[in-house]
Amino acid sequence: MKTTKCSYFCGMVKVVILGAGNIAQHLYTVFQATENITVVQVYNRSEKALKYFKDMQTTMSLKDLVEADVYVIAVADDAIASIANKLRFTDRLVVHTSGSVSMHELHKKNRRGVFYPLQTFTKGTKVDFSKIPICLETGEKADFKILRAIADAMGSTWYKISSEQRRALHVSAVFVNNFSNHLYRIAHEICETNNVPFEILNPLIQETANKINTLTPYMAQTGPAKRGDDKTINDHLAILDTNIHKEIYTLLTQSISKTYGR
Amino acid sequence: MKTTKCSYFCGMVKVVILGAGNIAQHLYTVFQATENITVVQVYNRSEKALKYFKDMQTTMSLKDLVEADVYVIAVADDAIASIANKLRFTDRLVVHTSGSVSMHELHKKNRRGVFYPLQTFTKGTKVDFSKIPICLETGEKADFKILRAIADAMGSTWYKISSEQRRALHVSAVFVNNFSNHLYRIAHEICETNNVPFEILNPLIQETANKINTLTPYMAQTGPAKRGDDKTINDHLAILDTNIHKEIYTLLTQSISKTYGR
Repeated sequence: MKTTKCSYFCGMVKVVILGAGNIAQHLYTVFQATENITVVQVYNRSEKALKYFKDMQTTMSLKDLVEADVYVIAVADDAIASIANKLRFTDRLVVHTSGSVSMHELHKKNRRGVFYPLQTFTKGTKVDFSKIPICLETGEKADFKILRAIADAMGSTWYKISSEQRRALHVSAVFVNNFSNHLYRIAHEICETNNVPFEILNPLIQETANKINTLTPYMAQTGPAKRGDDKTINDHLAILDTNIHKEIYTLLTQSISKTYGR
Repeated sequence: MKTTKCSYFCGMVKVVILGAGNIAQHLYTVFQATENITVVQVYNRSEKALKYFKDMQTTMSLKDLVEADVYVIAVADDAIASIANKLRFTDRLVVHTSGSVSMHELHKKNRRGVFYPLQTFTKGTKVDFSKIPICLETGEKADFKILRAIADAMGSTWYKISSEQRRALHVSAVFVNNFSNHLYRIAHEICETNNVPFEILNPLIQETANKINTLTPYMAQTGPAKRGDDKTINDHLAILDTNIHKEIYTLLTQSISKTYGR
């Protein structure tokens, strides 16, 4: 048992990746570039997506999976449980990479875990994993050390996060990522309608995000809603020319007012 | 007339600042640090706020204003017109620095303009004006060259922006700055309620803003609302424990769905 354990820290961690999409590709790239981690096989149901993994042993059959220290399931959320069920082996470490799926959706015939990199991945863009926090969870303590060793080898900051905490993080991520980006989109539309280059807003967008490095969002808040500046709020509502933009402006203004006790 | 014009480009631009608040202080600092610009006087109604401008000629009386090339009114929006009305001189260049006030609220006895730096200013934090776009507007063409020369001397990118365009920019800025920051605040609340460190989200916040450097917000959009992933959307709504968070989640999800034709 000692020697097996040591191999996770002193030797090579052997990984099989199940899935061939966006996250599978990014993890494959960082694992292959990291000392002490080696991808020994990539599985995918269809051949086409496997073309990305050239010079790599690939398979389309779950019964041909080779032995490894960790099996990383990086597929769409609703396919995770089904793949975990179909695995032919038992008592090996099987992890998924999803923010919104409970660890317990993995079949308990294997040791279970989660390796969730909290970031937005763009296809074809290189990712610096040293700047990405990894949320780790395992059923067994010893397995946590394996996942921690992988995150450490990648230079990533890791956090011990339960399935329940991860659900909260995932919905928070929707607010700061998906919804913020949609606000950028609305601003883009307003600029286009009024013949203003959207790029003028870019430094403001960057600075808004940067501020969070030194101030809490509560402290960083500015603007008419916080000041209770009804004249400016009404002026803005008069400029907006679609109902859904008006509704979003009104609701977020209400929410800010409430936050600051107005 | 030639020599006067030349002084704006070859010589020193003399500036009087009216106001002593946040933006007045930041402009004072950058003007004083810039070759070819000199602040010759700072006006403020009350003495207390003038303490910031040590080693500077200050006044609390509008009738004592000295001669300058540009008078920069950097006060609260609703005080701009009143100060401009009370100026004792005529035919000099008077500009304000507001995103939401029309140039025409400045009294027409003077030549009018706008010098609007589009950024969020934090008191006490040093500002790099070379990264801040300045929106310029003037009533007279020759005056535009003066404002442009000031922006150029500061190393800032400038844009010719009409009062109407500026209004659109200002409401857009509320979306990308005030409202995005409020979404960070909501995420912060969700994290606190669920005992998760908010800092985990910081790299995602930075990357969301960075993406806009290379992708349009339309192209950068990801997440359950865009995918039409109703299961995840319903899971998220079940996690949120305040009505206003649920309302914001629902409305922004609807708006994203609409944007992508779902």
